[in-house]
Amino acid sequence: IGPTACLPGFLRPETAQGIFVNFKRLLEFNNNRMPFAATQIGFSFRNEISPRSGLLRCREFLMAEIEHFIHPAKKFHPKFKNVANIALKLFSASDQLNNLTPCITTLQTAVDKQIIANNVLAYYIGRVYLFLQKIGIDLERVRFRQHLPQEMAHYACDCWDCEIHAYHGWVECVGFADRACYDLSQHSKESGSKLVAYEQLLKPDVIQTHEIILDKAAIGKQFGSDSKQIFSHLESLSNEQAIELETNLKNNNEFHITVDGKIFTIINQMVKKVTFSKKEVFVKEYFPHVIEPSFGIGRILYSLLAHSCMVREQDEQRIWFKFDPIVAPTTCVVLPLSNKEEFQPYIQSIVEKLARHNISYKVDDLNASIGKRYARGDELGTPFAITVDFDTLTSDPATVTLRERNTTEQIRLQVQDIAQVIKDLIDQNHKWMEIVEKYKLFKGQVSS
Amino acid sequence: IGPTACLPGFLRPETAQGIFVNFKRLLEFNNNRMPFAATQIGFSFRNEISPRSGLLRCREFLMAEIEHFIHPAKKFHPKFKNVANIALKLFSASDQLNNLTPCITTLQTAVDKQIIANNVLAYYIGRVYLFLQKIGIDLERVRFRQHLPQEMAHYACDCWDCEIHAYHGWVECVGFADRACYDLSQHSKESGSKLVAYEQLLKPDVIQTHEIILDKAAIGKQFGSDSKQIFSHLESLSNEQAIELETNLKNNNEFHITVDGKIFTIINQMVKKVTFSKKEVFVKEYFPHVIEPSFGIGRILYSLLAHSCMVREQDEQRIWFKFDPIVAPTTCVVLPLSNKEEFQPYIQSIVEKLARHNISYKVDDLNASIGKRYARGDELGTPFAITVDFDTLTSDPATVTLRERNTTEQIRLQVQDIAQVIKDLIDQNHKWMEIVEKYKLFKGQVSS
Repeated sequence: IGPTACLPGFLRPETAQGIFVNFKRLLEFNNNRMPFAATQIGFSFRNEISPRSGLLRCREFLMAEIEHFIHPAKKFHPKFKNVANIALKLFSASDQLNNLTPCITTLQTAVDKQIIANNVLAYYIGRVYLFLQKIGIDLERVRFRQHLPQEMAHYACDCWDCEIHAYHGWVECVGFADRACYDLSQHSKESGSKLVAYEQLLKPDVIQTHEIILDKAAIGKQFGSDSKQIFSHLESLSNEQAIELETNLKNNNEFHITVDGKIFTIINQMVKKVTFSKKEVFVKEYFPHVIEPSFGIGRILYSLLAHSCMVREQDEQRIWFKFDPIVAPTTCVVLPLSNKEEFQPYIQSIVEKLARHNISYKVDDLNASIGKRYARGDELGTPFAITVDFDTLTSDPATVTLRERNTTEQIRLQVQDIAQVIKDLIDQNHKWMEIVEKYKLFKGQVSS
Repeated sequence: IGPTACLPGFLRPETAQGIFVNFKRLLEFNNNRMPFAATQIGFSFRNEISPRSGLLRCREFLMAEIEHFIHPAKKFHPKFKNVANIALKLFSASDQLNNLTPCITTLQTAVDKQIIANNVLAYYIGRVYLFLQKIGIDLERVRFRQHLPQEMAHYACDCWDCEIHAYHGWVECVGFADRACYDLSQHSKESGSKLVAYEQLLKPDVIQTHEIILDKAAIGKQFGSDSKQIFSHLESLSNEQAIELETNLKNNNEFHITVDGKIFTIINQMVKKVTFSKKEVFVKEYFPHVIEPSFGIGRILYSLLAHSCMVREQDEQRIWFKFDPIVAPTTCVVLPLSNKEEFQPYIQSIVEKLARHNISYKVDDLNASIGKRYARGDELGTPFAITVDFDTLTSDPATVTLRERNTTEQIRLQVQDIAQVIKDLIDQNHKWMEIVEKYKLFKGQVSS
């Protein structure tokens, strides 16, 4: 890239580093308060030798990462209590090494027994578990596996993988790492810019401090053009070095320093006075630790597809996807029983109502039997089907049928109620069972 | 990239081509029906020599594209009527060439006078205009400029740019191109895979057809291993070529064909019979045309920032952003008047209500005057501020103040109503004026 097209370009292997290098700005954005978390979603790139297994092993993949920055001594999450009682399949490093199987444990127990290093890590494990449940992953096929000591990344002090079982066995879909202060301290070291946070101390720390008063004229006379560098070297001595300087001058009348590879000898006459004192400080800087849940979006989607793919009991040719409305590509398919012109106004009125309720829909008015079109909707994972039939034309107020995909049951209801009923089902204000109870099962002329 | 890391990798300059090469699949997804549109959002890459001007000229930028496929003779959009009466600033190619200024025209007039080539293009121009209005772009600084004939891309038959005026003058933010059938026909030519749609003909087309019966033994004897290629060449002759073959054989007793660069002479004995007939066809294939609105997301955002940045009349130091709630990073800031412990339960109850209504919020409980914290919220473009003050503690039921950013006006209302009132303002069920009328202006102890 570049004007000469000769500069090599690099693609990031994770989104995390963008957050770390912006740490100062993010801290400022949070009013300089700890703890806080930053999130990012975007493509990352790895040079896979042989990309394969669908969305599982790609050179370019979508990642989402949360970097939760905390004080190293305060690894507590205030909302941990909301997930503490979730029981899930944990496969600790020691259970793996002892050839045991994963065991079902509550997060509270796992933290108490120090199976999971701290409750922030455990909090995110719990939240991911709830997230997977919400989008429709089969929780029987989810486990959380701790990294063995030898497989843990060099920067991490505890690592867990959320593994989901599907066509390719157990696959890591979300990673949880306590990266400690590795990233912030490494960036600070390499860039010279301190990526630190500050804490107020309740009891001040007492630190040793010193002042060195030089005879600059004497140094200048002796070392000429090197003097300036010698001044700044002597002024930036640590407390230990200052003690060494004083001791050496007192005992040997000389002290050697190395500046830019050259050795200079400082003698008594060059130093007027060294004084030592104590100082109380109320603010202390520290490198925050970071807890990082890292999501492979493609892998989660792939697992969701695998777990959602079903076959109708009565006919193994009929595949369907049991997507929850929140993940289904289309919420509702609208079907006129035939291509009769008279159905059109009803279709129009229904889709306008659906659009106003932000319910996504597709009209399927192809020349195919209603059963075939139900099957096609099922195959696309569409949760609901509305059918406009001949009774719609004669009923007053007009009624249509609503079919639920999982049960294939139908009810008959007024056109004006349809969008609200679907909305309530999506928002889980009502269950399908309750709707059936209210409207009664419909087994009319429209056969599925 | 690749196992040897020696394969060059290429980055796409637009997202569009991914849609074109998937045309067949998309058509199938739409039940083989035309017209339809596909959309995509993602990063595109251009090797800018000198990236500059904020988000305006980047090497990596976010793009969103709609590819609307239509029959070349049916460039009509059924929803055009919804935008036909919008009047906007059009700067046609001829007005530019004649040194005129842009003129305000309705889309209906522009289509009628053929200033805009067709009503699908005009439909999208109208929709983009409404979109920009919705997110808060100043429409006085928006114009639609037609490309001059010499600047039009080679593939396009009409092009318009939506230009937005800001710090860097008029900048192209959305492009509208009628790309005709350029992309689909080029991909078909290069790949050999036909990216076409089919139309039913009401009146059948009559086409000439022919059949050639070869003496394969005679050809085989003469041409040996080349025979197979000669067979397939002769069998795929067009109708015109078949006529030429028959005429030549009849008149000259020979016909020359070129296969893979070699010339072969076909003589009478090799062809048993050529018969010609007519056939009625009811289906015709065609290359769909495509209308493409293409959005530079970074440029739109940059313009939005520029148009939203305001200064308070009474104090030019006080900058604020007039983001509409649908684009504001945070909808609501929640402010305890001071750090008193007693305010906490109210803050908790308020943020829970906001979260339940999906209203994003931030609690700002730093040690700063309430006026400073209002100013900080304004600077971040936060539309609403809720303040918990001493009256909250004593009122029963508890009340808080709600401040609207644009007017800096406040009202006082019950905690239990706060989330619904904000929700109604976001959804534009009520205007702030109406809310003020209902609750009356509050000018209490909390000064801004």
